[in-house]
Amino acid sequence: MPNLRLAFLGFGNVGQALLTLLLEKTEELRARHSIEWSLVGVAGRRLGSAIDPRGIDPLGALELAKARRPLAPLSAMPLEGDGVAFVGRCGADVLFENTPVSYEDGEPAVSHLRTALECGMHAITANKGPVVHAYRSLTALAAERGRRFMFESTVMDGAPVFSLWRECLPTARLQRFRGILNSTTNLILTLMEQGKTFEESVAHAQQIGIAESDPSGDILGWDAAVKVAALVTVLMDYPLTPQAVDRKGIDGIGEGEVLKAQRDGLRWKLVCRAERINGGVVAAVEPELLGPDDELYGVMGTSSAVTLESDVLGPLTIIEANPGPRTTAYGLLGDLVSAVRTAVV
Amino acid sequence: MPNLRLAFLGFGNVGQALLTLLLEKTEELRARHSIEWSLVGVAGRRLGSAIDPRGIDPLGALELAKARRPLAPLSAMPLEGDGVAFVGRCGADVLFENTPVSYEDGEPAVSHLRTALECGMHAITANKGPVVHAYRSLTALAAERGRRFMFESTVMDGAPVFSLWRECLPTARLQRFRGILNSTTNLILTLMEQGKTFEESVAHAQQIGIAESDPSGDILGWDAAVKVAALVTVLMDYPLTPQAVDRKGIDGIGEGEVLKAQRDGLRWKLVCRAERINGGVVAAVEPELLGPDDELYGVMGTSSAVTLESDVLGPLTIIEANPGPRTTAYGLLGDLVSAVRTAVV
Repeated sequence: MPNLRLAFLGFGNVGQALLTLLLEKTEELRARHSIEWSLVGVAGRRLGSAIDPRGIDPLGALELAKARRPLAPLSAMPLEGDGVAFVGRCGADVLFENTPVSYEDGEPAVSHLRTALECGMHAITANKGPVVHAYRSLTALAAERGRRFMFESTVMDGAPVFSLWRECLPTARLQRFRGILNSTTNLILTLMEQGKTFEESVAHAQQIGIAESDPSGDILGWDAAVKVAALVTVLMDYPLTPQAVDRKGIDGIGEGEVLKAQRDGLRWKLVCRAERINGGVVAAVEPELLGPDDELYGVMGTSSAVTLESDVLGPLTIIEANPGPRTTAYGLLGDLVSAVRTAVV
Repeated sequence: MPNLRLAFLGFGNVGQALLTLLLEKTEELRARHSIEWSLVGVAGRRLGSAIDPRGIDPLGALELAKARRPLAPLSAMPLEGDGVAFVGRCGADVLFENTPVSYEDGEPAVSHLRTALECGMHAITANKGPVVHAYRSLTALAAERGRRFMFESTVMDGAPVFSLWRECLPTARLQRFRGILNSTTNLILTLMEQGKTFEESVAHAQQIGIAESDPSGDILGWDAAVKVAALVTVLMDYPLTPQAVDRKGIDGIGEGEVLKAQRDGLRWKLVCRAERINGGVVAAVEPELLGPDDELYGVMGTSSAVTLESDVLGPLTIIEANPGPRTTAYGLLGDLVSAVRTAVV
C-alpha cells in the first residue's frame, strides 16, 4: 500500500478541519481505499512553514496552528520564500492549496497549483479562482503528468456536485442548471424574513464568519457569479468568466420587499442560472420571487442547491444543508480519494 | 478498445429504452469511456429470444419488439429453455436483467444474475428483489469473479443514489435517511390535492402506466418498504427485509384529509425513513403531514427524493423529477460504465 505524502499550503479553518478529518478517517482510508498518508509539509500565512520528508506530527501541527504559534520547530530544514518555493521543496505527492486568492486572476493559487502539477503532485484546492481562470490549462497539465487537478469544494462547499457529474452521470450533456450558490445572501434573506433589518442580517452573517468584513462580493452577486462561471466552465465544458454572467445582487431587496413577499406566500432568493443557447451559454445571477412549489423555496439559511437538467434524466436537484469548514474539508478529502483512484500511474 | 458483448434478458419498456439510449450514446461511450459494444443476445417474455455471437442488429431487435413479433429470425441458433438457459448460452460480457420478479424471493432474477456472474459477466438489473434478497451473496460472487453486480435503477429510477454514495461520498458513514421513494402514491396524493377522488387518482396512475392493475403494493407501502430495505442493505451495509420496515400505507388518507391539510398549508406525503439506533437500523414507511419548509414538501407527482445524513456532510438531498423508462434505462447505462471502469480485469 503506497504512502501518500501530503502537503498543506494554507492552514486556516479549512486546512485544519481537513487534517482533523484525515486523522479521524485514517482507518477508513486504509481499509476501503488502500490509502496510507503522512504529512510532509504545512504552511500558513501567519504560521510560516514546516517541511520534513520523514513526516510531521499532524497533532503537533494542529496544536501550533490553534495556538497561532510558528510551525518552524516542526521543520527539518530552514525555509524561506513564497508559496511557490514551498511547493517546489515540500516533496509531496498531493498538495492541498487553500491560500487567500485574488478573484481578478486566481493568483497566487494558480501558480501554486501549476508548480505542484509540474512537480508530479495531485493538485487539490477549495479556491474558485483557479477554476475560473485556469481550468483548461491546469487540467491539460495534470493530464500530461498523469496527475489530477481537483476542486470539489469550490461550489456548494464539500457537497459533491463536480464528482456527481463526473462519476455518476456518464455520457450526459448538461443543458441548463439553476440554483442557490451563495450562502451569505441566502442567510441574509432568511434573517430578514425572520424580522431582522438588512444591516442586522449582514452583521449577523459577519459575526458567524460567513460574510467578509466587506460583504459586497456576496451582496452584489460576485461570489455567485464566480460559482456559476466555475460550473459552466467545468460541467458544460464552456469557459465563461464571472464578468460574462448577467449579474444583479440583493442590494435592491429591502425589508419591505421581503415582508411583502412573505405576505403573498413567496420568498426572494438570489437565483443562479445558466443555459446552452445557440451554441453558447447564457448565464445569470439575480433575485427571484419563488413560490412553495419551487425546489429552491425551502433552501434556507446557509444551505445551497442546484438543479441539473441533462439529456438523460429529468431535473436532478442536490440540496446541501448546514455547511461549515468540515464540509469544505470533506470535499478536499473526496478529491484526494478520487485523484488516487483515477490517477494514471 | 475492447468490444463489450451485451445481452438483454427482459426486453420491455426499460430494455428497449436502454438499447435506444445505447445507440444514441455510442459515440460518447467510445470517446469518453473507451467502450465499444455489440448486442449478442436478447430475450423477452412474449418475444422469445435471439443469440448471435457475431452480433444482432439492435434496430432489428427494437423493430420486432415494438411490433410484438418473435425475435427468433435474428438468432444464429435454435433456442429452448428458460432465462437461466439463455444467460448460460448468450456468451455476453454484460447481462442486463429486467424480467418480472417475485418480491417474495427475488426469483427468477436472482438466478439469472447468479448465472451471469458465474459465467464471468457483469450483472446489472433494475429489479429490487435481488438487492433485498441476495445483495451480499451476489456482491461476494461478483468480487470473487472480478465482475460487478449493479442495480442503480432499483431506487429513484435512474437517478444516481447508489453511485453517489459509492463514488462521491468516500469514507462516509450513513446515520439516517428520509425520503419519498414511491412514485405512485406521491402522484395519487398530488392528484387528490388537485381535486380528484382517491379512486380517480388511482385510475389515472394506472392509465399512464405508473400503477399496476392491482395497485395495493404501492398503496399499502410495500414498494416503498422494499426500496427502504434496499437502501439500508446497501448504503448502511445492514441486511434488512421489507417485512422489518414498520409500514403504513396511504389507504387511510381520504379526500377529506388531503383537503384539510391543504387548507392548513400542509401536504400528506408517504415518507420513508431509516436510522441507526443501538447497533441496529430502525426503518419506517408512513404518511406524514409536511409544511412548506420541509425539503420533501415540493416533491410532487411522480418525482422522488432522499435526504442522506452522514458523519461528514450536513443533510444532502437529491430530488429527481419526471422519471420515465428512459430514466431507468439511464441508470442501467451508468451501471455499465461504472462496472467496466472498476472491474478487476
